[in-house]
Amino acid sequence: MNLKLVLRNLGILLVCEAISLIPSLIISAIYRDGDFSSFLITIIIISILSLILLSIKPDSKNIYPRDGFAIVAFGWILISLLGALPFYLSKSIPSFVDAFFESSSGFTTTGASILSQIEGLPHGILFWRSFTHWVGGMGILVLTIALLPSMGIGSMQIMKAESPGPVVDKLVPRLGKTAKILYSIYFCMTMLEIFLLCIAGMPLYDSIVHSLGTVGTGGFSIMNSSIAHYDSVSIDIIITIFMILSGINFSLYYLILKGKFKSFWKNEEFRLYISILSIAILLITFDLLMKNTYKSFGTALRYSSFQVASIMSSTGYATADYNTWSIFSKVILLLLMFIGGCAGSTGGGIKNIRFLIFFKSMKNSLLRIIHPRGVYTVRINDKPMDGKTVSDVLVYFYIYMTVFTIGVIIISFNGMDIGTTVSSVLATLSNIGPGIELVGPAGNYAAFSSLSKITFSIIMIIGRIEIYPIIILLLPQFWKNN
Amino acid sequence: MNLKLVLRNLGILLVCEAISLIPSLIISAIYRDGDFSSFLITIIIISILSLILLSIKPDSKNIYPRDGFAIVAFGWILISLLGALPFYLSKSIPSFVDAFFESSSGFTTTGASILSQIEGLPHGILFWRSFTHWVGGMGILVLTIALLPSMGIGSMQIMKAESPGPVVDKLVPRLGKTAKILYSIYFCMTMLEIFLLCIAGMPLYDSIVHSLGTVGTGGFSIMNSSIAHYDSVSIDIIITIFMILSGINFSLYYLILKGKFKSFWKNEEFRLYISILSIAILLITFDLLMKNTYKSFGTALRYSSFQVASIMSSTGYATADYNTWSIFSKVILLLLMFIGGCAGSTGGGIKNIRFLIFFKSMKNSLLRIIHPRGVYTVRINDKPMDGKTVSDVLVYFYIYMTVFTIGVIIISFNGMDIGTTVSSVLATLSNIGPGIELVGPAGNYAAFSSLSKITFSIIMIIGRIEIYPIIILLLPQFWKNN
Repeated sequence: MNLKLVLRNLGILLVCEAISLIPSLIISAIYRDGDFSSFLITIIIISILSLILLSIKPDSKNIYPRDGFAIVAFGWILISLLGALPFYLSKSIPSFVDAFFESSSGFTTTGASILSQIEGLPHGILFWRSFTHWVGGMGILVLTIALLPSMGIGSMQIMKAESPGPVVDKLVPRLGKTAKILYSIYFCMTMLEIFLLCIAGMPLYDSIVHSLGTVGTGGFSIMNSSIAHYDSVSIDIIITIFMILSGINFSLYYLILKGKFKSFWKNEEFRLYISILSIAILLITFDLLMKNTYKSFGTALRYSSFQVASIMSSTGYATADYNTWSIFSKVILLLLMFIGGCAGSTGGGIKNIRFLIFFKSMKNSLLRIIHPRGVYTVRINDKPMDGKTVSDVLVYFYIYMTVFTIGVIIISFNGMDIGTTVSSVLATLSNIGPGIELVGPAGNYAAFSSLSKITFSIIMIIGRIEIYPIIILLLPQFWKNN
Repeated sequence: MNLKLVLRNLGILLVCEAISLIPSLIISAIYRDGDFSSFLITIIIISILSLILLSIKPDSKNIYPRDGFAIVAFGWILISLLGALPFYLSKSIPSFVDAFFESSSGFTTTGASILSQIEGLPHGILFWRSFTHWVGGMGILVLTIALLPSMGIGSMQIMKAESPGPVVDKLVPRLGKTAKILYSIYFCMTMLEIFLLCIAGMPLYDSIVHSLGTVGTGGFSIMNSSIAHYDSVSIDIIITIFMILSGINFSLYYLILKGKFKSFWKNEEFRLYISILSIAILLITFDLLMKNTYKSFGTALRYSSFQVASIMSSTGYATADYNTWSIFSKVILLLLMFIGGCAGSTGGGIKNIRFLIFFKSMKNSLLRIIHPRGVYTVRINDKPMDGKTVSDVLVYFYIYMTVFTIGVIIISFNGMDIGTTVSSVLATLSNIGPGIELVGPAGNYAAFSSLSKITFSIIMIIGRIEIYPIIILLLPQFWKNN
């Protein structure tokens, strides 16, 4: 590992973080809730730290994959640590462990919170909390679409690897240009949602904050009861649609801009995502009607579609406390937490593309038993995938389950019920936010031990960066020079 | 599929079942609890049915894999259906669905029960209930060591496929001879346990019944409180050891008989099994001490080792109600339910050999990211495995999880808590028996709906025959002639 190079790049990340704190600083100056100084001090600390790091002159400017892993892993941790300062310095969150949890939850676009009373907090702090989602979502797009695939890992790598012909899903070859296009789409989506929410009657500040949280599939709200606070059908519909949109591969929007509607519509991952969403919405709607949770089909559909979109896109907003729904509906929601969004979206989870490959591998494996001499290849979007890539995808699930299992064992020390224990780990690893039982939409993560909160923070970061960059750092082979 | 051939083979299976009912008939004649006629009628029904099936003359005597799948799948279902008759006819279990559940649970060596009051039942019925475990365990040994591998599937197939050299784990090449050796080992183990339990002070009848349940890794007891009833340290130790032994690959015992202690000791799956067992026992022992569940180290060790051995070997006997243990201990036990025993044992679960391959594939996948040009092969017992086999093993977990997920969705209709819902499916699919919460060691499966009980019965059979034979029957490609 080229330590100097890694440190210098972390310095660049810190410059970005300092800049991203400016909007919150301005808002704290406008509303004068007493949080101005906490932002100012944080910006000064980060600036000094970044100047120190930027003063380091690396011997070589070539970034190798292992340097990349270190930058990604340490970068996300460092940004979260420093991003916790405003919460801590303004005394909005008196414990630094809690502030770190909240900051990690923000930057990883998870939306899990240790706060039970949100509405009394300063405007600048609440804006920063939601803005971390937006910044995190931006970072994830570049990370998963451009950086990770070039290091040979990640879910977009799968899409890349499968195409022996021209790489259609890779947008424009050069990194900078790709990032610019992605950011433009991301920015326009945010603006459009703010505009629509304002029309639907949500105040401007609320519209901005909730749009930041939607497009980044984060889920932090400024209301204790989340989106339920507004109790508006049109707001529910707008946010439902934008949550679904944010869980779709952003490369596909580029196809639309280019007028390639057919390739968009034929994309297999998109189809799987929409199919699972629709089936889950229907199943839960009928379950809610059967159990008389809601009287009319329309109301049941409204709440079920919002919650399904929220969980599957890994956003985590709520318009209903699904903890009070039947165990059948809760089981469906828990399963969606594993699946998550599409590759190349801001959504978390295992990703639909991987499930697509699981299902196809399963089918091939069964067919091979019936016809032992048959040759069966996994094809995605009509292109064959090589065996090694398929095998790596299959292995990803084990790595995910291993992290999940270790997480559950550590969190079980808190002695909470099995639903809380399992769903809290799942909801953080998949970057959803709320789970079931104590960490349900009406609950929060305050009751866990400090060790657990630190564990959750690390789990959120591990899940967000598709696990590998952090796990690889733990291998002794990584640190050997050869 | 050669239907006539399949039917004829089912006829042979029924002859075996009729014969296996004779000991219970004799016991019912000795104890005169009023269950004699139910056994007599069952034997007559099965004999008539088997005569009809045996009168079918197949056109060809060649059994192809697809015929094999049908024989295995329909065979296990048919045997369970007919094996339910004594329970039903003697009115020990008044509902046929319940009787079918109990019979499937017996033959699949699961040990899940719908009975809450066991002690009042006739001796013949209780003997039959435990004898189904023993017969089932015998069937599984031949099925998993000889039949399934020759059809290209199953966990012993993995061991076979990995060896390009002489096949050490395959015992003696010819099926009949293999079966004879396995049965001798199985029989001797049973006799030895009966002998030791008698010495430890357990009555002869009880010793026989509990030995049948141990060696078959079943778990049906004749006492409401299972092995806890005897409250004897020596009985606990004997059963703990025999449960552990029954979860080990029976081929390895043949190695011991041949004096090849070194190959036995170096077997990687055996080592993983023993390592996981030991770690789980230690973790739970310390947890029980820390939480003051038991006062002394010895007592904590006694109960934790019994329960860990019982769950991991998929037996399901209990000396303590682990439902009252901490969530940490329960989480460890739930994880063991996934793992299960070794390939080629009477134990259920995903099997240790597959986890060994998961771990090695995971490590290789990570190493490939660090060294993209490196060549990494999965090696088991120093022999390389080909990529296709590894891929099939990786896929098995998805198939297992898919069945598990569908099971959880169906069972969630009962509206029970999440712990009961999830653990009941896990405990039946992995052929353990007891789960946690309502289906814990002090509970039972009586409260579920009839649909759920039938689902559980099918899940137990699916899990027992390593999933494939039943799943393949559901593929349209299976039924196409080509």
